Amino acid sequence: MAQAVQARIGDSEFDRDTAVALRETGVYDAELSAGWTIIHAVNGGYLLALLGRALGEALPHSDPFTVSAHYLTASQPGPAVIRTEVIRTGRTLSTGQASLFQYAQDGTEVERIRVLATYGELDTLPDEVHTTATPPAIPPIEHCLGPADGPAAIPGSSAITERLNIKLDPATVGWAIGAPSGKGEMRGWFGLADGRDADPLSLLLTVDALPPTSFELGLKGWTPTVELTTHIRCRPAPGPLRVAITTRNLAGGFLEEDAEVWDSADRLVAQSRQLAKAPRT
Amino acid sequence: MAQAVQARIGDSEFDRDTAVALRETGVYDAELSAGWTIIHAVNGGYLLALLGRALGEALPHSDPFTVSAHYLTASQPGPAVIRTEVIRTGRTLSTGQASLFQYAQDGTEVERIRVLATYGELDTLPDEVHTTATPPAIPPIEHCLGPADGPAAIPGSSAITERLNIKLDPATVGWAIGAPSGKGEMRGWFGLADGRDADPLSLLLTVDALPPTSFELGLKGWTPTVELTTHIRCRPAPGPLRVAITTRNLAGGFLEEDAEVWDSADRLVAQSRQLAKAPRT
Repeated sequence: MAQAVQARIGDSEFDRDTAVALRETGVYDAELSAGWTIIHAVNGGYLLALLGRALGEALPHSDPFTVSAHYLTASQPGPAVIRTEVIRTGRTLSTGQASLFQYAQDGTEVERIRVLATYGELDTLPDEVHTTATPPAIPPIEHCLGPADGPAAIPGSSAITERLNIKLDPATVGWAIGAPSGKGEMRGWFGLADGRDADPLSLLLTVDALPPTSFELGLKGWTPTVELTTHIRCRPAPGPLRVAITTRNLAGGFLEEDAEVWDSADRLVAQSRQLAKAPRT
Repeated sequence: MAQAVQARIGDSEFDRDTAVALRETGVYDAELSAGWTIIHAVNGGYLLALLGRALGEALPHSDPFTVSAHYLTASQPGPAVIRTEVIRTGRTLSTGQASLFQYAQDGTEVERIRVLATYGELDTLPDEVHTTATPPAIPPIEHCLGPADGPAAIPGSSAITERLNIKLDPATVGWAIGAPSGKGEMRGWFGLADGRDADPLSLLLTVDALPPTSFELGLKGWTPTVELTTHIRCRPAPGPLRVAITTRNLAGGFLEEDAEVWDSADRLVAQSRQLAKAPRT
């Protein structure tokens, strides 16, 4: 999507739709936007970014280093409240907890997600890298496929596809034409459609934004997240991100999805793993 | 270690040392055994098994499917209390929270670890496996090296080494003779010294029992766990386990450790990932 003006961090769709308003100490009101839904479900990564933002307000450190989320019930667009607790504050790291609730018809709160998270300051970390991991081999973005390229479209009408600029590696889109690779892999380029660059909060969205690897394993249908833990390892450089997701073990009706996110400076900026329920076969 | 009689699940050192006693609804007293320490620190996997046991009592389902632990302060041998909360109970899965506390000199409780966990029933899952992952290539156990084999000894006098039967792949013990491989890999065979077979709770110990991969990356010293999430995917078959740990990204003073645990029936029974602080260089 061509943008007349590139949105900036702090002034973008993502920033507006993850805004939280302090109600009282540690309690934040939020509005789950219908713009981040897949079919009728609110995207789990978007919800994680909202919780991450509230915790960034509640804790003395700014950046999520590790965030563990257990998904309890399905969220819907509309009002929500996030209740946070500061568990421990240290010099370099602090740990907190947050729960996102929505309201039942009688007004009672229903918990949607609970997270434990440890925060720090990414900008204080040394630049040194001791390992030799390299970014995933993904073809140039102009050779990758997005929703406008026909068969690679994400099935169903999903508002979230208009907010994201995802271009999948042709090697991992066989599912879209009925020819899944049989490998538990999904790879592609990721950006926000309005051109906003990535930051630690938007990485929480990025790790859960690609189609599930189960599509390439020949299983169609919903793969609800049970638990998703994300490590943010480095502040991402401006420019598009590369995301590679792998599944080693689809067994017993569950699968894990491991995501790596690399930035334009070839730094591994985020790693995540989720346990999800496999689609019924 | 030759055993006259093999200990059984439910009647072993591990079972006795992870016992929890109901104090009141959802609250369990425990005693952290000095038998599971490395130098003076209580092993994080042993602590996780204790928390997992308390949650198995508190929740309507028996088996940990995914357990996310954030480590707050260092535990010491001695009395502890575990406070649990049932967050959500469903037909096939339930989610709970648990915190392990110890006591300051004035009697106030100090929180050591907090976990979120989702439990289910492993024995109700179908046997089907859709992926083709294979166990790690580890030499036969008689060609692997344990503490009694001299240079491969875990440094320091650590009580836990007497409770475990760990035999490391010679390819990942270069650190012990001052010649680390430079690869972020650690592999070996794992058993409990008294011969007790593995179960879902002992797997929580297994994932955090090998020396850190940072040794093979040439960094000596302590690698304290910040967060550790474990997925238990299958009830392990009797017999020794194989554990493979890899680190892709040691950067900015932190590293992730991914562990896979395979059973004697070649099933991937557990996967874990932790974020740890790298030793100071």
